[in-house]
Amino acid sequence: MAPSRALSTGLRTLRQFPPLPLPTIHRRFISAYGYEQAKALVLSGHGEPKDVLSLHGHSISPPTGDAVTLRFLASPINPADINQIQGVYPTKPTWTTTLGTPNPIAVGGNEGVAEIIAKGSSVEGLNKGDWVVMKKQGFGTWRTHAQTTSSEVVKVEKEGLKAEQVGTVSVNPCTAYRMLKDFTPLKEGDWFMQNGANSGVGRAAIQLAKLWGYKSVNVVRKRENGHEDLVRDLESLGADVVVTDEELKSKPFRDQLKEFTNGGREKVKLALNCVGGPLVNDMAKHLAPGSPVVTYGAMSKQPVQLPMGLLIFKDINFHGFWVSRWADKNPKEKEACVSEILTLTREGKFQDTPMDPVTWNFDTKQDELVKAVQGTLEGFRSGKGIFMFGKT
Amino acid sequence: MAPSRALSTGLRTLRQFPPLPLPTIHRRFISAYGYEQAKALVLSGHGEPKDVLSLHGHSISPPTGDAVTLRFLASPINPADINQIQGVYPTKPTWTTTLGTPNPIAVGGNEGVAEIIAKGSSVEGLNKGDWVVMKKQGFGTWRTHAQTTSSEVVKVEKEGLKAEQVGTVSVNPCTAYRMLKDFTPLKEGDWFMQNGANSGVGRAAIQLAKLWGYKSVNVVRKRENGHEDLVRDLESLGADVVVTDEELKSKPFRDQLKEFTNGGREKVKLALNCVGGPLVNDMAKHLAPGSPVVTYGAMSKQPVQLPMGLLIFKDINFHGFWVSRWADKNPKEKEACVSEILTLTREGKFQDTPMDPVTWNFDTKQDELVKAVQGTLEGFRSGKGIFMFGKT
Repeated sequence: MAPSRALSTGLRTLRQFPPLPLPTIHRRFISAYGYEQAKALVLSGHGEPKDVLSLHGHSISPPTGDAVTLRFLASPINPADINQIQGVYPTKPTWTTTLGTPNPIAVGGNEGVAEIIAKGSSVEGLNKGDWVVMKKQGFGTWRTHAQTTSSEVVKVEKEGLKAEQVGTVSVNPCTAYRMLKDFTPLKEGDWFMQNGANSGVGRAAIQLAKLWGYKSVNVVRKRENGHEDLVRDLESLGADVVVTDEELKSKPFRDQLKEFTNGGREKVKLALNCVGGPLVNDMAKHLAPGSPVVTYGAMSKQPVQLPMGLLIFKDINFHGFWVSRWADKNPKEKEACVSEILTLTREGKFQDTPMDPVTWNFDTKQDELVKAVQGTLEGFRSGKGIFMFGKT
Repeated sequence: MAPSRALSTGLRTLRQFPPLPLPTIHRRFISAYGYEQAKALVLSGHGEPKDVLSLHGHSISPPTGDAVTLRFLASPINPADINQIQGVYPTKPTWTTTLGTPNPIAVGGNEGVAEIIAKGSSVEGLNKGDWVVMKKQGFGTWRTHAQTTSSEVVKVEKEGLKAEQVGTVSVNPCTAYRMLKDFTPLKEGDWFMQNGANSGVGRAAIQLAKLWGYKSVNVVRKRENGHEDLVRDLESLGADVVVTDEELKSKPFRDQLKEFTNGGREKVKLALNCVGGPLVNDMAKHLAPGSPVVTYGAMSKQPVQLPMGLLIFKDINFHGFWVSRWADKNPKEKEACVSEILTLTREGKFQDTPMDPVTWNFDTKQDELVKAVQGTLEGFRSGKGIFMFGKT
């Protein structure tokens, strides 16, 4: 990298220039807030997280004009983030040379909450200390600091909320919210069915459904240990029925479901699927004619097989939902959705998903951070992995 | 069967009472039209057509009140009729003892056109000589005559039409019509793609699309003999592009399609599927994001396998269409659809599908009729099998 280039973008890499007392060197740039020393988990090409992620340091100049400088508070590690790093996700990372590297790099992560620590003179409606979430995916949220234009972020009311609650609201709860609302009109007393009920989306769907008066059949894999605890946990969130995938396809379940649904007078009108494979058919069989099955994930990596009879004669219809596409098309609705869920959270009516925080301080080593990402990929975390940034 | 019971329903079986000069025996029942000697291809249980179909004779008394007596003119043999006989169709045949048998039987066939040859005194809007089609499936159309209430039939303007054109309008052309209209808004210049393009529905879709300004990619199986003739035939109906299933999945096709669609500026916005299996994915890949795939048949007997990426990231959505359900829910729209297609036929703008007529006279033997049905099942007919009734 040519130092002159880094300087011309107002950024410099820590790798090449160890942090120096900035006022001395860069006196002419000093604003009221000064430079920020930032670190980011970046990639310069696709691959397994452990092979391609590295910790990149750079500095951020004081914001001018419409720019704001952000200090991240909490950024989750979502499965989609990992697929994006692997190059198997339809939305590519945002490659850039503005972080002071000669070749483009991209910052990992798409979701998070940050605090505004400085703003340019023309920024309106945002102030130092405000909390913001990202308007679109591809922002790169696995970093201590970032500078962007004010139009790329949305302010959230932080009152009464923890950073990890705000930092995880945009993807999973919004996905659950829209899938329950946008595919078929459910009214109070109607049922929906979902697999992967213990996922972040699943837990959000249970709670939102309960709040809106819908009932839920929740399908989970049988756990060797702690299965009863899981069932109780989901029931405490509001799950009406919890069954294993084996129970779902057993003969007695049809009769049981009839009992649950008031002799079949209440209908199961929607199915949410994040697993794929034959489980989807086992669910679809219990749906009322004309019902949609909405797929938002494929944890089993098996395709859905559609028997023609379900499609033609039972009019079951199959859709996908991708919250990123929805949010990009409906920015106002996304804001409203985030705000509504945060209000519910503040009121104690909506619980965030169990999390497995990874502390990220200025001196946290690259290895620890990369391991946290790789660990999410390998599925050995006890909850949702989330980077929690210390005050630096 | 107790003869008294047969007489009490105003019907008698020919099997047990060979036809006698009716005026002599039943003088007190004689109306201006008299009794009709009817024959019907019936089943008393499910199975292969060759095993369960038999020719059943009975007589029909003069209509009273709201009843009309029909003489059938043309009744097609649709694949669904055969599935219904086999017991693998969701709509069961209409079992009845009103045709003079002690145990319930059902008349095969669901589509057809008949002439009104007599009516009861309270029938309005229908007259002797009018042509009618059936309002709902399950009527039983493989018979020379039937008696029903006037509300079960819909009058069609027969002017300028052949019986076989009217007798085949309700299922295939209506299916094509609704699938092109009801799943996504197509505008002039938009494309759709379909497999089984040489089927009755496929040929109807090509023609309707042409009339409405839509363009079509038509997928057919490669024929060992006469493939070029088939291609020319479909092109003469208005097909813009005809490809084999092998060509569809070949690499060059993507570039060819781009050429056809004006460099990709015109979009393929809908797919119609009556085959199933991997062919559906080969088609779905060429669709614009958000497009529906509508399944109305499963000739390959293979399920559709949905890769999650198509569902989630490309927003391709999968639906079924069953014209019987649609017609039962939308009787007025069905009438309008039938009438519009018959107007187009009369104007020479819509060609019926190639047919393989089976003449059914009063003395046609059971074997010939059953063989015609079994032949359709085994797929060796050169066109759509259709019973054409002689004047009896």
